[in-house]
Amino acid sequence: MAYICGLKNQNNMKDVLIVMGSDSDLPVMSLAAKLLDEFEISYDLTIVSAHRTPERLTDYGNEASSKGYKVIIAGAGGAAHLPGMLASHSVLPVIGVPIKSASLSGVDSLYSIVQMPPGIPVATMAINGGLNAGLMAATMLGATNSAVKEKVAAYKENLNKQVLTKAQNLEEIGYAAYLKQMGL
Amino acid sequence: MAYICGLKNQNNMKDVLIVMGSDSDLPVMSLAAKLLDEFEISYDLTIVSAHRTPERLTDYGNEASSKGYKVIIAGAGGAAHLPGMLASHSVLPVIGVPIKSASLSGVDSLYSIVQMPPGIPVATMAINGGLNAGLMAATMLGATNSAVKEKVAAYKENLNKQVLTKAQNLEEIGYAAYLKQMGL
Amino acid sequence: MAYICGLKNQNNMKDVLIVMGSDSDLPVMSLAAKLLDEFEISYDLTIVSAHRTPERLTDYGNEASSKGYKVIIAGAGGAAHLPGMLASHSVLPVIGVPIKSASLSGVDSLYSIVQMPPGIPVATMAINGGLNAGLMAATMLGATNSAVKEKVAAYKENLNKQVLTKAQNLEEIGYAAYLKQMGL
Amino acid sequence: MAYICGLKNQNNMKDVLIVMGSDSDLPVMSLAAKLLDEFEISYDLTIVSAHRTPERLTDYGNEASSKGYKVIIAGAGGAAHLPGMLASHSVLPVIGVPIKSASLSGVDSLYSIVQMPPGIPVATMAINGGLNAGLMAATMLGATNSAVKEKVAAYKENLNKQVLTKAQNLEEIGYAAYLKQMGL
Amino acid sequence: MAYICGLKNQNNMKDVLIVMGSDSDLPVMSLAAKLLDEFEISYDLTIVSAHRTPERLTDYGNEASSKGYKVIIAGAGGAAHLPGMLASHSVLPVIGVPIKSASLSGVDSLYSIVQMPPGIPVATMAINGGLNAGLMAATMLGATNSAVKEKVAAYKENLNKQVLTKAQNLEEIGYAAYLKQMGL
Amino acid sequence: MAYICGLKNQNNMKDVLIVMGSDSDLPVMSLAAKLLDEFEISYDLTIVSAHRTPERLTDYGNEASSKGYKVIIAGAGGAAHLPGMLASHSVLPVIGVPIKSASLSGVDSLYSIVQMPPGIPVATMAINGGLNAGLMAATMLGATNSAVKEKVAAYKENLNKQVLTKAQNLEEIGYAAYLKQMGL
Amino acid sequence: MAYICGLKNQNNMKDVLIVMGSDSDLPVMSLAAKLLDEFEISYDLTIVSAHRTPERLTDYGNEASSKGYKVIIAGAGGAAHLPGMLASHSVLPVIGVPIKSASLSGVDSLYSIVQMPPGIPVATMAINGGLNAGLMAATMLGATNSAVKEKVAAYKENLNKQVLTKAQNLEEIGYAAYLKQMGL
Amino acid sequence: MAYICGLKNQNNMKDVLIVMGSDSDLPVMSLAAKLLDEFEISYDLTIVSAHRTPERLTDYGNEASSKGYKVIIAGAGGAAHLPGMLASHSVLPVIGVPIKSASLSGVDSLYSIVQMPPGIPVATMAINGGLNAGLMAATMLGATNSAVKEKVAAYKENLNKQVLTKAQNLEEIGYAAYLKQMGL
Repeated sequence: MAYICGLKNQNNMKDVLIVMGSDSDLPVMSLAAKLLDEFEISYDLTIVSAHRTPERLTDYGNEASSKGYKVIIAGAGGAAHLPGMLASHSVLPVIGVPIKSASLSGVDSLYSIVQMPPGIPVATMAINGGLNAGLMAATMLGATNSAVKEKVAAYKENLNKQVLTKAQNLEEIGYAAYLKQMGL
Repeated sequence: MAYICGLKNQNNMKDVLIVMGSDSDLPVMSLAAKLLDEFEISYDLTIVSAHRTPERLTDYGNEASSKGYKVIIAGAGGAAHLPGMLASHSVLPVIGVPIKSASLSGVDSLYSIVQMPPGIPVATMAINGGLNAGLMAATMLGATNSAVKEKVAAYKENLNKQVLTKAQNLEEIGYAAYLKQMGL
Repeated sequence: MAYICGLKNQNNMKDVLIVMGSDSDLPVMSLAAKLLDEFEISYDLTIVSAHRTPERLTDYGNEASSKGYKVIIAGAGGAAHLPGMLASHSVLPVIGVPIKSASLSGVDSLYSIVQMPPGIPVATMAINGGLNAGLMAATMLGATNSAVKEKVAAYKENLNKQVLTKAQNLEEIGYAAYLKQMGL
Repeated sequence: MAYICGLKNQNNMKDVLIVMGSDSDLPVMSLAAKLLDEFEISYDLTIVSAHRTPERLTDYGNEASSKGYKVIIAGAGGAAHLPGMLASHSVLPVIGVPIKSASLSGVDSLYSIVQMPPGIPVATMAINGGLNAGLMAATMLGATNSAVKEKVAAYKENLNKQVLTKAQNLEEIGYAAYLKQMGL
Repeated sequence: MAYICGLKNQNNMKDVLIVMGSDSDLPVMSLAAKLLDEFEISYDLTIVSAHRTPERLTDYGNEASSKGYKVIIAGAGGAAHLPGMLASHSVLPVIGVPIKSASLSGVDSLYSIVQMPPGIPVATMAINGGLNAGLMAATMLGATNSAVKEKVAAYKENLNKQVLTKAQNLEEIGYAAYLKQMGL
Repeated sequence: MAYICGLKNQNNMKDVLIVMGSDSDLPVMSLAAKLLDEFEISYDLTIVSAHRTPERLTDYGNEASSKGYKVIIAGAGGAAHLPGMLASHSVLPVIGVPIKSASLSGVDSLYSIVQMPPGIPVATMAINGGLNAGLMAATMLGATNSAVKEKVAAYKENLNKQVLTKAQNLEEIGYAAYLKQMGL
Repeated sequence: MAYICGLKNQNNMKDVLIVMGSDSDLPVMSLAAKLLDEFEISYDLTIVSAHRTPERLTDYGNEASSKGYKVIIAGAGGAAHLPGMLASHSVLPVIGVPIKSASLSGVDSLYSIVQMPPGIPVATMAINGGLNAGLMAATMLGATNSAVKEKVAAYKENLNKQVLTKAQNLEEIGYAAYLKQMGL
Repeated sequence: MAYICGLKNQNNMKDVLIVMGSDSDLPVMSLAAKLLDEFEISYDLTIVSAHRTPERLTDYGNEASSKGYKVIIAGAGGAAHLPGMLASHSVLPVIGVPIKSASLSGVDSLYSIVQMPPGIPVATMAINGGLNAGLMAATMLGATNSAVKEKVAAYKENLNKQVLTKAQNLEEIGYAAYLKQMGL
């Protein structure tokens, strides 16, 4: 089944490849996809388990660059080997997302992803930082693409405005009324 | 003194901006510079303290993009605010290097750099991962620059060969002789 | 919009400035405000995000002293840069409140706030220590204001009495009945 | 011996009381004293062990305010009870310095000092943050004393200049020469 | 009110003094009391806050031995100073119980209690180990009291039997049926 | 009661001995049993508490090999001594499962099991890794038994297929629809 | 060799039994012995490895009480099972000393010793707290022996005096001269 | 160069395959080899870097079983992916050795190796537990090979005797003389 070979049947016109170790990571990793949707940056999103589908991992790592992707986003939890192994196989920048784990709250995932040896870096996000992975991918692309860079700037400006609006509201109504609005 | 304004007097033809919070970070951060030298990627390298020179931090963050840099590398230790604050001020990708600290071995630096909130990502490297910061900057540039991407590929291929040479040596002479070669 | 400039439109007759990185910190930080209300110490309370509103942060830090504030209280979670950056910009004492975070329970917030480098101290409270931030602000003001110092003394005396009343109750009715009163 | 009663024989014209749990803490705690010397702020410095001299602790806590001190600085390591117990006994602001410990690198000291319950705050500094404790004391006094506040501002301005001088040097001579200057 | 003086009005015929820093610790600390009830060992149980009632703490520590107690059990959470400060004031053995805390799960409590300096030991139990504190008190008394020692032996024998009964049940009915019995 | 002597009355035709320190560990440890059921590998499963039934522990450790078992699986939480003590008494390989604990999330269990001294190894699984303990036992047996090794291979192949099926589904319906299927 | 049976050949007139898991623990554990020497409390001191001499462990645990010992002190590092297993086998109070370990600085030793389950307490000391283990043993014996209790009181009084002497010296000569005396 | 293909040129008559991520791991991993030498168990020992030689990793994982190895030992530090990735590719039991790392003392290595997901277990040893990895390999082989099992038993018996000899010496000469013998 050609499918097993991973990237072979995929569209090579996409900029970002988003993979995760398990579908249980999807609630976090879909935030990256949503951010890229909002930025109109094309991507593929799928599941690649370093431990359960090692051949698929090898294929994805080896072929991601030749298939035309420019950035890889990889999320995994526990002994999170997916981002680091993709970085081993690929010449593309890999953004790693440590998923919060059941026993160690993602400290295991964080250490497994960030503590890479010299020569094989992974650009590590905060624990459960799916949204930031999408934004970092956009920021990387924006470094050499002014249209995307403007979207990054606009996104940050919008965050700024949201805080100012909340701050103005809080200053006007006071903390007691604001807490009520929050349902507390 | 115009100097205080930071980037204003600098050459805007460089690709990468490397900053560190203190000159005590230089042994780690110079590894990034050396890597970029090896890749023939241009950069500026200087000291910007988030806590001791906050105006300089603001200037560097606000102007790095317009000055022509494409990637920022920032190293800091302890309550390491430099990478995150540069990311707040800039639309460029920021690569953060947690410097090993005296009491907490860099766990404080790592948490301060990696645990950024949604909207302001920092691409975090391993503790003392100065070399990897340089390589990640090259990899980001290589995503849209095939000449740089080939250098990244060659760099990885060279790492591969170095391991194979050591492996062959170890297999041939055995662990006892190899340990002697290591002076152990 | 002058509003963006932060402190410019605010009343400069207040003693304490309370800021937080996000409105999600309000349940903790409002405890500081309530304590100051109880002590009849004036304050302003608002949102300033180090990462999403860096200019606002700079304005607040630079102007807090000239606007007449005597103490700053700042609460933030995760890569909590707000208290340290305000301390960088201001000559006022800054009290930092690490907010409990989703994955690391506030250890990240604590390390980011307390591990400041020589020259830029932050007076760090316990994780989620909003009430204590208000009380520390009052205690600082009380150091040179005997009326406030008496209120601090009275507050502590009252805490003492509350414990003694509970202790007397527990000694009289025994642990079994006391647990029932607690609904356990 | 009146001496045992602690504060009774001391000069009550000093602004700051610096205490430490053991003379092994002196290398760190003397940094606070040196900073206050530099700021021309008066202080007493001595040893008070919460665990080995509990009566002395009680005396110091109870009498510090009436003896005329305005701020207490307390350093301790391991199960570091000194700062918190002084805060229990006194209405003065207490600045706590966690001393780096042999086995746990000061994490034990930090947690013992910072995690105070509601009602009894301690203004906690970084592990081994003796200098910052002195500076925080000055900053607290400066909040209502413009002469001291100006010294704090000048101190920060000087830090800024030191960084700029180092940055200029590094930019001029490059990292290789700078590392040589550092003896590396 | 003589009551404030703590131990002065209490019955001096009791063997064990159980104190806790807050009534919120009662669910854990009452387990010690229940164990002593079961062993028919007399005790007093009350609240003594190191931070909110420091004079009461001093009185309890100083007088516990002369009032006839033989062992002290003290439970506290966070910056848990109660057990260590009682050990400072008393020549009796102090058993410390670290109470699980909201943010740090009791690691702060544990470090604050166990990491005592040379000269002032606290016999530290597991986090939330109230029952074991009672049993350790009984075991200490049993070291020189054969009647109590026999009760300790019987208690352990009973634990042994309980495990054997459960093991026999599990072996007979199998894990599936056993899980059903557990409601899983 | 012969029962107390543990292994004496048991069937010596089983390959694997599964023990746990408490019946509260059964939800995790039954996963090992289910895996062995699936692989048709015979086992005994019971409770042996290192602390509450030390004689039983000694018997099990001393006799497991002569009774015919080939592998021991032991799960325990907190100060988890069961796996290490069985390894002390037995010449069989011991697989240890750290059970997630109430206060320290299993870090205590993990350190107690994995940090064994030279000479007495325990093959440690992830926290709550009951299923993997069963699979590791099968893998050990498979090292010298090709029928079992084929089952291990088939099990891994099946995991591979499950991931591929999920990946195909996710690629076809997209993350939004997939999240709905997950009930999110 | 009767020797192997451990306690059988030993003098049963001793009050305290000190054991350690390895002779590498002797520098720490000899501090307990020295303290008992100073208090003129009799003891035996030897090596018992939970993992390398499990039968010896069982013998020591089972027979310590009948041999006349009143308190057991046990030190161990890493997966430190010795104190807990002695507590399982014996009705005597067991004082545990976590030895600082090579990789985890004794956190592993501490968790393995202190996190005992309900029913089997170990009175845990600080990491490397050998001296305190001796003092806690004396304090336990002093609870029902007024001569020993007076020695404990005298010991604490002496500690108090030592601190006061150092404090007086520091107050008289100042920190600069005192640091010189310390050779700093 | 056929060499790159790894296992293809190797002797398939060996029982154990020992690999490590870097030659800097050799001082630890050679302990496993020495143990196997002592047991007269055959092995190959070489370097395989998961990150720098990913194809070699794949080859070794895929072919180890068909080449005749029965057990794999893999040591790695930091983001230690080697043991887990070999387990992904192979049906043989994999023993993982976390190597102590520069910044995080091997906690990163431990978490990366032990926290494997369901389906892909790694038998994890203590940090720097190279000797135990060799012994666990022997123990696994001994489970179905009585000659090897007897060697394991003899090895443990010898450890027992060594402790007894040291204990006898310590009991005879006392701690002071013993410390002198240790050069302390």
